Amino acid sequence: MSKFLNEKIAKITPYVPGEQPKQRKYIKLNTNESPYPPTKMGVQMASEEANNCYLYSDPECSELTSLVADSLGIKSSQVILTNGSDEVLNFAFMAYCDKDTPAVFADITYGFYKVFAKLYDLPTKVIPLKDDFSIDIDKFISTFGTIFIANPNAPTGIALDLNEIERIVSSNPDRIVVIDEAYVDFGAKSAVSLIDKYDNLLVTQTFSKSRSLAGARLGFGVANENLIKDLMTIKYSTNPYNVNRMTLGLGKGAILDKEYFNENCKKVIQDREYTVEKLKELGFSLTNSKANFVFAKSDRIDGTSLYLKLKEKGVLVRHFNDPRIIDYNRITIGNREQMQAFIQVVKEILEETK
Amino acid sequence: MSKFLNEKIAKITPYVPGEQPKQRKYIKLNTNESPYPPTKMGVQMASEEANNCYLYSDPECSELTSLVADSLGIKSSQVILTNGSDEVLNFAFMAYCDKDTPAVFADITYGFYKVFAKLYDLPTKVIPLKDDFSIDIDKFISTFGTIFIANPNAPTGIALDLNEIERIVSSNPDRIVVIDEAYVDFGAKSAVSLIDKYDNLLVTQTFSKSRSLAGARLGFGVANENLIKDLMTIKYSTNPYNVNRMTLGLGKGAILDKEYFNENCKKVIQDREYTVEKLKELGFSLTNSKANFVFAKSDRIDGTSLYLKLKEKGVLVRHFNDPRIIDYNRITIGNREQMQAFIQVVKEILEETK
Repeated sequence: MSKFLNEKIAKITPYVPGEQPKQRKYIKLNTNESPYPPTKMGVQMASEEANNCYLYSDPECSELTSLVADSLGIKSSQVILTNGSDEVLNFAFMAYCDKDTPAVFADITYGFYKVFAKLYDLPTKVIPLKDDFSIDIDKFISTFGTIFIANPNAPTGIALDLNEIERIVSSNPDRIVVIDEAYVDFGAKSAVSLIDKYDNLLVTQTFSKSRSLAGARLGFGVANENLIKDLMTIKYSTNPYNVNRMTLGLGKGAILDKEYFNENCKKVIQDREYTVEKLKELGFSLTNSKANFVFAKSDRIDGTSLYLKLKEKGVLVRHFNDPRIIDYNRITIGNREQMQAFIQVVKEILEETK
Repeated sequence: MSKFLNEKIAKITPYVPGEQPKQRKYIKLNTNESPYPPTKMGVQMASEEANNCYLYSDPECSELTSLVADSLGIKSSQVILTNGSDEVLNFAFMAYCDKDTPAVFADITYGFYKVFAKLYDLPTKVIPLKDDFSIDIDKFISTFGTIFIANPNAPTGIALDLNEIERIVSSNPDRIVVIDEAYVDFGAKSAVSLIDKYDNLLVTQTFSKSRSLAGARLGFGVANENLIKDLMTIKYSTNPYNVNRMTLGLGKGAILDKEYFNENCKKVIQDREYTVEKLKELGFSLTNSKANFVFAKSDRIDGTSLYLKLKEKGVLVRHFNDPRIIDYNRITIGNREQMQAFIQVVKEILEETK
């Protein structure tokens, strides 16, 4: 840190992404990526666009915005495309929180919420998950803060019902409720259907997981037109060309090739259920995950040791040091071969620790 | 604007990018893009990377960072890659300005500085250019604020000498001086050579102009290691995977294919000198531009009319409504054919207004 850094920033604890090892080849089940490559249609479009990168991209992202809107049955003016869904979350913290409007979120949830709150020096209200790791809905009713809920939640994978979301949104009419649906395509219900009814609802989604574009950086926010205008103001004040030409190409392919998308989501769900079943057979307890990962605790080995032994044997999973979840590991659902290999390694480890 | 938007953001005036028309085909000389496509080597790498976009990009951007560092003869730890150079400028406003440390910049310069200052509710000290549009160097000595200087300046194209930059940097040892070198490759001297000598100097550059990657979003900051660490803190608190895989590919190609880069810079400089000469013949006054644009005023037609008539006839240039420069237009240097066509259209317009 330099002596020039301002006080506020000097206090930040940055987000720590999952490991991205370069030396050794791992079975990588630690960052919730899709095991399936982007659709060929998108790759083709991105490659063509690479040649056009001497020209700025369309700052309005009109074509892809309209494709996304159509696919959701809403208007283009209700969509903002962003550089990953982290960017629309970032914009929401900037737009809708301030010293009198705390950011409200669960104690165990996407780690970036608290980083953004710290970055902008915002007050927070942290609401503990219940003992079973479900969201404590009653505590999110009439909070007087701006609410951030990941649905399904991370790293638990537990999803709220749409009527529970609606209860929260309708009870906070003077505050924004952000529903972060990064993992929604793997079995939860989206709140997009509620945006015409509630002017205080912002739904965020990403192309990183279900659309296999983690490395392209593409996300979006969906809300009523006025909220989208707010977020556009911030976009044009920070990053007007926020989605590059090649990513727009990949994104178009991802929306147009709906069959590939559906097929991949289906495979991930099947392989999640396979993994859950096998882990249960090995004595693990798991949350009811509707995401592309499972959250599991063994009755025979502690979470940290399991994480380290898996790594030693070439399998990366995500372990968090938070005491409430230190017994658990978050395991991304790869393809069937990867999950079989993972289960095999877990068996070996359990054998060795008998 | 929604009723939920916080007060600070509600006051922002966003940056207005140059027009990106979709309906009509223009000779587009309004956004300082390169007329030359990205190097084939980069396009090849980007296309290959498109297939890998299901995996996150390397958050450390190690390979490209090291290529950039090598090309500048500095260490990787002295470089941060960003999503366009706007992102590193954004980080610098966040890191090095606060309520007691105003942002200091010229009245006529890159329009984004005042947008960032407003976005973060920062005090500013705006220093008017001299009557000849040159930077008033004496006013930047010992300012007690964080200084932002575009060199060459936009939209004038006028460059400072390296010893003038050094005078400013050395006179502000307790404050950061940011030298924004977006256009440096077209004839100005870079301040990168000074980063080992001054711990308060941050130099920013972009791949958008001289490396033909406006539509890919790639820029970087160069400074001593401690400043880079500060900026990394903000990167990991906002956008850890800020450069996507395909852009990393294009960027690598752009650095490796040095010959193509040199050749394109040379052509732009030649075509700038051609354009200057032709405009002078037509009675224009011009600043001494060292950038990939010229800044010109006619003695026969006012700036706004010329801009509108050019647009009518299919040529887009950039016109600014600021009263100090309302007589001028900024004309990006395209290829020779485009500049010939531009000059021809200007001649026609001057004929018509006789």
